[in-house]
Amino acid sequence: MCVRPMRTIEWDCRHRNVRLIDQKALPGRLTYITCSNYRQIIQAIQTMTIRGAPAIGIAAAFGLSLEASAWKGQDLQAFRNHLTQVANEIQSTRPTAVNMAWAMDHLKNIIREEIKDINELRQRLIVRADEMAEEDVSINLQMAEFGASLIRDGDTIIHHCNTGSLATVDWGTALGAIRKAHEQGKKVHVLVDETRPRLQGSRLTAWELEQYGIPYDIITDNAAGYFLSIHKAQKVMFGADRITRNGDVANKVGSYMLALAAKDNNIPVYSVAPSSSIDLKIANGKQIPIEERDPQEVLGIEIDGKRVSPKDATALNPAFDVTPFRLITAIVTEKGIVKPPFLRNLPITLKKPFKGVT
Amino acid sequence: MCVRPMRTIEWDCRHRNVRLIDQKALPGRLTYITCSNYRQIIQAIQTMTIRGAPAIGIAAAFGLSLEASAWKGQDLQAFRNHLTQVANEIQSTRPTAVNMAWAMDHLKNIIREEIKDINELRQRLIVRADEMAEEDVSINLQMAEFGASLIRDGDTIIHHCNTGSLATVDWGTALGAIRKAHEQGKKVHVLVDETRPRLQGSRLTAWELEQYGIPYDIITDNAAGYFLSIHKAQKVMFGADRITRNGDVANKVGSYMLALAAKDNNIPVYSVAPSSSIDLKIANGKQIPIEERDPQEVLGIEIDGKRVSPKDATALNPAFDVTPFRLITAIVTEKGIVKPPFLRNLPITLKKPFKGVT
Repeated sequence: MCVRPMRTIEWDCRHRNVRLIDQKALPGRLTYITCSNYRQIIQAIQTMTIRGAPAIGIAAAFGLSLEASAWKGQDLQAFRNHLTQVANEIQSTRPTAVNMAWAMDHLKNIIREEIKDINELRQRLIVRADEMAEEDVSINLQMAEFGASLIRDGDTIIHHCNTGSLATVDWGTALGAIRKAHEQGKKVHVLVDETRPRLQGSRLTAWELEQYGIPYDIITDNAAGYFLSIHKAQKVMFGADRITRNGDVANKVGSYMLALAAKDNNIPVYSVAPSSSIDLKIANGKQIPIEERDPQEVLGIEIDGKRVSPKDATALNPAFDVTPFRLITAIVTEKGIVKPPFLRNLPITLKKPFKGVT
Repeated sequence: MCVRPMRTIEWDCRHRNVRLIDQKALPGRLTYITCSNYRQIIQAIQTMTIRGAPAIGIAAAFGLSLEASAWKGQDLQAFRNHLTQVANEIQSTRPTAVNMAWAMDHLKNIIREEIKDINELRQRLIVRADEMAEEDVSINLQMAEFGASLIRDGDTIIHHCNTGSLATVDWGTALGAIRKAHEQGKKVHVLVDETRPRLQGSRLTAWELEQYGIPYDIITDNAAGYFLSIHKAQKVMFGADRITRNGDVANKVGSYMLALAAKDNNIPVYSVAPSSSIDLKIANGKQIPIEERDPQEVLGIEIDGKRVSPKDATALNPAFDVTPFRLITAIVTEKGIVKPPFLRNLPITLKKPFKGVT
């Protein structure tokens, strides 16, 4: 299948390019941009025209497909070397989420395989990337089923950042679970953390909820603690950019404080993420690199067309933080719901590639 | 004394009006507005042209002075009734901070006193309001000394909202302590919580720190947890809008999550507030009314001149939350530093008016 409406990102096999929703134009306009080479993909990732850990994993894979597709040389080893270098270049754009590294490692394994023909290798990479996009959707649907099973009729859920269709190829992670619960006929209400600095909550999650007909109210990230303290919410849900061996979750900055406030009020916290977010090579969250982004994301905020901060103000802008597993009630993956202790309860199929680690 | 430069609010005895800094024009321009009647004062409070618990207490007192000053009638009892009614009207504008109630109760006691002459009562009220403004400054200086004694050379301090000169008549509360430490020659660095929704941190605190020459970086409220988790900050400081008998602190929304993150990393949290913020009539924070403000404060945020949230989005906007005393290392007042247990350690002079309560 080549073109489906409303997918966040897809490979257009007819034109050999990649079409993706321009998330910077939302919620005002739903428009698409086309990338015809991997540098445009990198730019789209860096500017957060596409964002969300699973979605940028697929974007990275498609970026490599574009380069494989464009290669004109005849030397197989040169082709392999070049693709490996491009894979590393793409991978370095956003250090925190592991899904991109996972996708690149996966394709680099194919590059290293005993394929004797440039065309065959090219085709293998393109087909595999497209399969990964398809798998993303089916994985998300499975996660949504598990996640929805945790949501009760009448629940109000505090949700951080955007974890919906727009953060993946389709359906999403935490927001997918909420959408599934809604489709199952459960009454749900979402308190949408606006998610400073880039406001993916008020920009994207609110827009998605409107598409699905799910009632919501936007709140400042600061207000989540208040609503939890008066038990106006019964669940907290967010995604994950990387989950370590002990179950620590790196996710959009602010997740940690939100989880603390939920814990302080005995309200469950669920991190919903595909198993490709799990990085068993890393012992705990302290070892996860935290991306520092442009201070202008903090300083560029305006009210009534006027910038708020002083002209020469400086800012610091870490994009992620780490929520220790002790604050998380369960991690929801496509293979099941994992409660503490994390590593012991992880499904055996997820432990397999890392048999040595305990 | 009538006119001093740079006071946040002051009574101009020559023109019988009130001059205050227009905080909505900062940090772009330092301009003053003049209020010649109490309705203008109410409007300035409601629109947050003036804000900060101690400052709105003084604004309320000056509002009553304006009305006393303008009264033309000859009937003392009618004068008393009218002023009491105006005091109640002013007091209802912002329900969470207790300083305004404290100031109004104080002046209502004078109104009830056995004064036989309209002119004398008028004069008493005007003089007392001006004294309260003067006392605010001396109280703040005393608090700043106590607060500064908790700050070490080299400290990085996370600060929430604005608690500086602009939140009081002069000097401020938590920010006053930081300013005093800086003036004592201690090297301090401030991580300024931007403080959504109204961004008093990036708008006002950053501006004040520039005036004092204190180095700072603005951070999103979400990022505070990250910086605490990597021990980039050694203290958390904020003000208080109301402190209850058990030491619970109502303060700008987000304070609770910030205090949780500090506690989780064994970093001390100090609430710095004048004793007029202490409300011993209230047993704990659950009983404090939390003001809900206009959702447009949440939804009106723009980037590159474009509103971020969907056109029909709704929002909830609680302006305050309650930080339980168990999360607070000490409360700093002008009478001293109060550690837990709060009520037992409260200086005897602060317990006096509420002798009955234990």
